[in-house]
Amino acid sequence: MVELDFNKFGGLIPAVVQDYKTNEVLMVAFMNKESFEETLELKKSCFYSRSRNKLWLKGETSGNVQIVKEIFVGCELDSVLLKVEQVGNAACHEGYKSCFFRRLSNGELTIISKRVFNPKQVYNNLNQVGKNIATLEAKVYEKNKGVKK
Amino acid sequence: MVELDFNKFGGLIPAVVQDYKTNEVLMVAFMNKESFEETLELKKSCFYSRSRNKLWLKGETSGNVQIVKEIFVGCELDSVLLKVEQVGNAACHEGYKSCFFRRLSNGELTIISKRVFNPKQVYNNLNQVGKNIATLEAKVYEKNKGVKK
Repeated sequence: MVELDFNKFGGLIPAVVQDYKTNEVLMVAFMNKESFEETLELKKSCFYSRSRNKLWLKGETSGNVQIVKEIFVGCELDSVLLKVEQVGNAACHEGYKSCFFRRLSNGELTIISKRVFNPKQVYNNLNQVGKNIATLEAKVYEKNKGVKK
Repeated sequence: MVELDFNKFGGLIPAVVQDYKTNEVLMVAFMNKESFEETLELKKSCFYSRSRNKLWLKGETSGNVQIVKEIFVGCELDSVLLKVEQVGNAACHEGYKSCFFRRLSNGELTIISKRVFNPKQVYNNLNQVGKNIATLEAKVYEKNKGVKK
C-alpha cells in the first residue's frame, strides 16, 4: 500500500482534478489523509476544506460530484492527480465547468468559458430544497412526538 | 491589475502546469508573490521551493525550462494554471514528461510512462559542466590576478 507524504504542509497535499475525457483541468484543492482515504473508498473526490475546516465531499451541496476514474501520484508522493467524470458538467461553484475560467493577460482577467449553470438559481433552489426537507423533518418530528416507542 | 490571494496558506498558492498542446498535467508546485511576478516577467515558470526555501526557476539546473503560453486564474484567486511548452519534453526530475508518471490502483503504484531521460546521466553531466565552468573560472581568476587594472 502506497504511503503519501502528508507531513510537508500541515497535513495537506494539493490534488489536481482533470476531466478524464478532455483532460481539461477542472480545479485544484487540498486533501488531508482522511479525505484521500475517503476518495479511495467512495471513488468520489473528497477534499479538505481549509475555509470550513472539515472534510468536503465535492458536490455535497450542488450534487455535482466527481466520479474518480483514475488516480496518479506525484513523484515526491506529496501531490495527486485525479481524472474524473464531472457530474453536472460544472466543477466550479461559480457555474463554470472549470474553476480556471479566466485567462490572465497583461494584468487583466478575461472570462473564456460559458456558464453551465447560474449559481444563484442552483444554490437558491438547493436552499429551498433544504428548507423543504427541514420543514418535512419538523413535521415528522411533530407527528412522532406523541408516538410512544 | 489582478491581485491574487497569497494570504491563505503562508504566502503560497498552488500552480498547476499543463502541456499547452496535449493538456497533459506535468506537475503542481507552489508560488509565492515574487515567483508569480517572476513568471509573468520572464514568461517562464518560476516557483517557490519549500525544501530549498527560495525562488526556483523551473529548469534552472536541467535546462528543461517551461515557456509559459497562457495563464489562468482560479475562481477564488488562490491558484493558477499555466499552459506551457516544456523544453526537453520532461518536467519531472525523475526523467519523465510528467511528475504524475505513476497510477495508483488497489493500493499499488504502476509506472505508466516512458522515461525521456536518465536523471543520473543528465544531472551528473550537469555537475560535470558546473565543475568545468568552475575550473575555467579559477583559471581566468589565476590569469587575471597578476594583471593590473
